[in-house]
Amino acid sequence: MVQAYILIQTEVGKATSVAQVIAEIPGVLHAEDVTGPYDVIVRAEARTVDDLGRLVLAQIQQVEGITRTLTCPVVHL
Amino acid sequence: MVQAYILIQTEVGKATSVAQVIAEIPGVLHAEDVTGPYDVIVRAEARTVDDLGRLVLAQIQQVEGITRTLTCPVVHL
Amino acid sequence: MVQAYILIQTEVGKATSVAQVIAEIPGVLHAEDVTGPYDVIVRAEARTVDDLGRLVLAQIQQVEGITRTLTCPVVHL
Amino acid sequence: MVQAYILIQTEVGKATSVAQVIAEIPGVLHAEDVTGPYDVIVRAEARTVDDLGRLVLAQIQQVEGITRTLTCPVVHL
Amino acid sequence: MVQAYILIQTEVGKATSVAQVIAEIPGVLHAEDVTGPYDVIVRAEARTVDDLGRLVLAQIQQVEGITRTLTCPVVHL
Amino acid sequence: MVQAYILIQTEVGKATSVAQVIAEIPGVLHAEDVTGPYDVIVRAEARTVDDLGRLVLAQIQQVEGITRTLTCPVVHL
Amino acid sequence: MVQAYILIQTEVGKATSVAQVIAEIPGVLHAEDVTGPYDVIVRAEARTVDDLGRLVLAQIQQVEGITRTLTCPVVHL
Amino acid sequence: MVQAYILIQTEVGKATSVAQVIAEIPGVLHAEDVTGPYDVIVRAEARTVDDLGRLVLAQIQQVEGITRTLTCPVVHL
Repeated sequence: MVQAYILIQTEVGKATSVAQVIAEIPGVLHAEDVTGPYDVIVRAEARTVDDLGRLVLAQIQQVEGITRTLTCPVVHL
Repeated sequence: MVQAYILIQTEVGKATSVAQVIAEIPGVLHAEDVTGPYDVIVRAEARTVDDLGRLVLAQIQQVEGITRTLTCPVVHL
Repeated sequence: MVQAYILIQTEVGKATSVAQVIAEIPGVLHAEDVTGPYDVIVRAEARTVDDLGRLVLAQIQQVEGITRTLTCPVVHL
Repeated sequence: MVQAYILIQTEVGKATSVAQVIAEIPGVLHAEDVTGPYDVIVRAEARTVDDLGRLVLAQIQQVEGITRTLTCPVVHL
Repeated sequence: MVQAYILIQTEVGKATSVAQVIAEIPGVLHAEDVTGPYDVIVRAEARTVDDLGRLVLAQIQQVEGITRTLTCPVVHL
Repeated sequence: MVQAYILIQTEVGKATSVAQVIAEIPGVLHAEDVTGPYDVIVRAEARTVDDLGRLVLAQIQQVEGITRTLTCPVVHL
Repeated sequence: MVQAYILIQTEVGKATSVAQVIAEIPGVLHAEDVTGPYDVIVRAEARTVDDLGRLVLAQIQQVEGITRTLTCPVVHL
Repeated sequence: MVQAYILIQTEVGKATSVAQVIAEIPGVLHAEDVTGPYDVIVRAEARTVDDLGRLVLAQIQQVEGITRTLTCPVVHL
């Protein structure tokens, strides 16, 4: 499995609804509102890097109100 | 009380009106136009971090013309 | 309690040792290596924003090999 | 008079001492520790932009532990 | 006089027309297309910092196709 | 010949279609989806820096769904 | 296999020697000097995301003169 | 000829001396201190992109006190 943090910027005023919708997506472990340069931080997992890319592109980025996502895969060194 | 600086980017040409509207929001101490990577710098306060988050999300980010806000809570170390 | 993600940049070649040392600090829930603009992502909690600031400044930033930390408090909206 | 916010990044672990030293510099109105991408936010004033530049370069940037300063002059529009 | 470089990001495909229109604005010395994180770099001058702010806000930012401007006042140290 | 990497940010959900369309543009050697702060990385070549600028502005930036491009010319030192 | 672009910033004056040394590392397909916010762009591949992380941390980041690396895994969507 | 703006960040307290030294380098048209995210902005020219890369790497980046340079070639579209 590949795990990742996904740092998300939203349209102004949309952070809460974005976090709530993302939290329901299969593969998303949790989604929380934060302050600072990002608005929502998500923890997700998928079987491969390509599956993770598809999860972000086809599921998470389809959520209304997201402007940028930054995927940070967890590495076990 | 939690105090914070909120660094704001606006749509082009909207900095002045954004600063004027924000300055009227309860909890905002002052709002000023600046040059550089940010367009308006706000000083605000709230009872808790969660209240501060709500002030930014539900009040400040509702102001027409804002594209990004960056909340920097003041810490007393 | 205040919870936060702390996004950390390290000196080149130091990410693993930084994550291992931080994981032992009281108040830190977990610390993981990631790829992308950040090298380590930490989950931490403290009683107040000021306590969180002290945890970051007096404990986490003292770890050898850290160059920047970015604290993102979780907000419950 | 020209007024400005100066957003400061410090070496890890140095934010508090930097804020305390800067607060004593003539022309500095106040200096506070913050969390987020910046570590200290300063409010300063000078007679002209050139004087402000000199204040930053010759006084503030001489403080031990500062790595970057970002000057944002206040504009009255 | 206050002089400044103004680093401009434009909508995709708009850099050339933005540079041409800005070059005609009084107070603008020249405006050139560049590659990299910015699309157009402008050299401008005004009597004071406040006048410079007004030039940017009321004239340059009104040009169709600009998404961000970053004003860097020249300082004589 | 001038060669360059072009780092591209797209609207959310558009990375794949952007990469596919760009890959067909003459002068583009390949275009791939990536994760991280950029969504697509392109390798392109042109006869001169000005031709490269025109390729980016008149061809690549015309592709539906691109929000920012960052051109990094390869240099042979 | 996982493939990735690695965007590298170097100490001033070190870009050429960094690119030459990295080009010799097994798993690195090519390494080129570029202008812009990055100094060297590398193409590398590894068997898994974890192996890629190890290649970056244990091999590439050990090269003298590197200050930051940004790994962008290629995704096939 | 290729012309470029070179946006420079310096060590704290070094902006003035950096600008003075760079202004003497052949190929540099002028070098000025600025406030904001950059400390010095340079205008330079060279015969080709490769010559420009060499000017930056072998001449400008050798100046004591520079931490980052960002080269923005001018394009005539």
